[in-house]
Amino acid sequence: MADDRGELLAAGQAGNIAAILAEEAEIIGQIRRRGALSRTDLARLTGYSRAKITPLVGRLLASGILEEIGDGASQGGRRPRLIHFNSSQGCVIGVDIGATSLDVALADLAGQIGERVSEPTDVRLGPEAVLDRVRTCAEALLARRGIDPRQVYTLGVGVPGPVQFATGLLIAPPLMPRWERYPIAAHLRRSFPNARVVVDNDVNVMALGELWRGAGVGVENLIFVKIGTGIGAGIVCHGAVYRGSSGCAGDIGHILADPGGAVCTCGNVGCLEAVAAAPPIAARAVAAAEAGESAFLAERLRAAGALTAADVADAAAHGDLAALAIIQRSGRLIGDVLASLVNFFNPGLILIGGGVSQIGNQLLANIRQRILRRSTPLATRDLRVEYASLGLDAGVTGAVALALEHAFVVERG
Amino acid sequence: MADDRGELLAAGQAGNIAAILAEEAEIIGQIRRRGALSRTDLARLTGYSRAKITPLVGRLLASGILEEIGDGASQGGRRPRLIHFNSSQGCVIGVDIGATSLDVALADLAGQIGERVSEPTDVRLGPEAVLDRVRTCAEALLARRGIDPRQVYTLGVGVPGPVQFATGLLIAPPLMPRWERYPIAAHLRRSFPNARVVVDNDVNVMALGELWRGAGVGVENLIFVKIGTGIGAGIVCHGAVYRGSSGCAGDIGHILADPGGAVCTCGNVGCLEAVAAAPPIAARAVAAAEAGESAFLAERLRAAGALTAADVADAAAHGDLAALAIIQRSGRLIGDVLASLVNFFNPGLILIGGGVSQIGNQLLANIRQRILRRSTPLATRDLRVEYASLGLDAGVTGAVALALEHAFVVERG
Repeated sequence: MADDRGELLAAGQAGNIAAILAEEAEIIGQIRRRGALSRTDLARLTGYSRAKITPLVGRLLASGILEEIGDGASQGGRRPRLIHFNSSQGCVIGVDIGATSLDVALADLAGQIGERVSEPTDVRLGPEAVLDRVRTCAEALLARRGIDPRQVYTLGVGVPGPVQFATGLLIAPPLMPRWERYPIAAHLRRSFPNARVVVDNDVNVMALGELWRGAGVGVENLIFVKIGTGIGAGIVCHGAVYRGSSGCAGDIGHILADPGGAVCTCGNVGCLEAVAAAPPIAARAVAAAEAGESAFLAERLRAAGALTAADVADAAAHGDLAALAIIQRSGRLIGDVLASLVNFFNPGLILIGGGVSQIGNQLLANIRQRILRRSTPLATRDLRVEYASLGLDAGVTGAVALALEHAFVVERG
Repeated sequence: MADDRGELLAAGQAGNIAAILAEEAEIIGQIRRRGALSRTDLARLTGYSRAKITPLVGRLLASGILEEIGDGASQGGRRPRLIHFNSSQGCVIGVDIGATSLDVALADLAGQIGERVSEPTDVRLGPEAVLDRVRTCAEALLARRGIDPRQVYTLGVGVPGPVQFATGLLIAPPLMPRWERYPIAAHLRRSFPNARVVVDNDVNVMALGELWRGAGVGVENLIFVKIGTGIGAGIVCHGAVYRGSSGCAGDIGHILADPGGAVCTCGNVGCLEAVAAAPPIAARAVAAAEAGESAFLAERLRAAGALTAADVADAAAHGDLAALAIIQRSGRLIGDVLASLVNFFNPGLILIGGGVSQIGNQLLANIRQRILRRSTPLATRDLRVEYASLGLDAGVTGAVALALEHAFVVERG
């Protein structure tokens, strides 16, 4: 994070956000992950004794972060009091910046999303213009609920480019060169002076969204694959997003997938995204139309002057064989790369998301087939390979989760 | 682990091993990882307050697990007392079972290896015979130091086959079919009734050894690649061994490396170990000798009737071009697979170990070249690719580390 513990403490003094101990963060983390809990539950889950839990919970209740919300089920004796976040105490904001859209959501400390807004944008407008829109949207959501901007604990922000997670800066982002090393956190703190701002790339944020509220709930190790203009993966390892040693883990779009394939924007030959993402799907559709292999695609090409992956999806839905072959080819190439990664990483779940995942079930079927064909039996025995469950909401949901994850972190040496 | 917390508590009552709290385990873990520490150091490293540290350390000193060992450097005031393990209080045993050798080491709770023994064996003799030898060796080491077998906290055991880590059982091990689901832990506890026994596969254990005492010290994310009869990897993620969802992470020997390559024992074509491990290196050497491409190898083949990877190493050391080409080919194939994994996993370090890593620097040079050629610049910017630093000691060192890691674990719900 760009901001350190010192800043957070300063924020706490100014904005009613209390400094917390490591054990208190542990208690808050359990309630964040599991919802309302009794003191007995907390003792069991944290491994702390009841004698230790009681004063810790007492301090958090007194600070207003937690509140008692009623009685749980009795285990034979007195009905235990359940403890939950005091949702009036503060909030977090999730921001999902896409290449052409932005989503902002306001959530309470229990992760309940109360307000959200989505609007078109263009990251090529540059960071000032786009982030000013983010601030305006977020301020409007807060105003609707009557919440003071100083009550925002954290902003979680997903961006469509490579992020150095420790600093929150975009490094050599291909889609958004003007954002290179732009201080996103400092810009957003103009409106939310007490907030910690956490920036991550969009695929990691989507993986976190699925882990928190989607198909990944309860999964320890998963790979989220986004197939769109490019191909990237978000990795969850031991229940947490894994970013690698330089923050670029999951950059699977440049793995060699076809030694005889097209030249990639990176200069190498046959990179996965150069042979299997949306642009090569569209290019193959044009070739099929021009070669007279598909009346459907030729008609679309005549009408629109160009073809997209969505046209290939439509053609396939109408039973067009050339379109089906194009989708199958992408699925096989992606599946072969994932087969290698399954042998290496042995995940419990692979989720396929991004725009191209809307192309129909043929893609998923081919990905699955190739994984089963080339991965070891033990690695695929309990492996699920599915389309992502949150669809276009994965990003903003994950951004809220990212914000909550960092709302009560205590830095440890 | 096969044994649960209840058993460990029972062991503690019988054998002077104290039941510990989660916070005590945290303190012990810090001392295990960093050596002697003052109470002030412990407060800083755990995030606990001094007021909390003092009684916890007091209890551990009273139980005898920790002891004060003298004064540290003054920070201006009174010189702080340093706290360390009481090495007379108990011990752990590391066991490295290879296909044809076994190593047993006895270490104190600070990880100091005091006694060790190595002897030839053959895993095909079956688990009873081999594990009886392990017991005999370990008992002899304890007797030399006058330690009661009931004082053994943990045994860490590495075996050359796939292990279901949660149960400690070998599953479908190709080199040692008679060991399938054999209760290794129960067998070893005949001699060490109070010990927790933790079993893992040899490559994970080697990775742990390098992480603890070798080239991996301080590295958060690394891949240890063992190249021998087969090829496998041990993965360290966020500073801990990563085993995957079914316990088979790192099984990189069956990743497709050469679509036109040989058929593997698994039935697939072109698996990495079928085209780049010791047997294909030896096979290519025989072919080169028979084709008249290498006088050196032809002479060796005539003398011995067969060739090994070690012969190829000798030939290369004498400047034999055919041998160099064989080594380069293996290096390129391994490097291409690792390039994909570097893009996905973005490790800080790759260590190359196993018998074939003794074949000379040409192998490492080719692995490095191919990784640099096909991985993204960001992923390779700070990546080190090196031969493993502990050599044949990586296994037994890692087995001791595995034992220590599990000596003071408190299970949490």
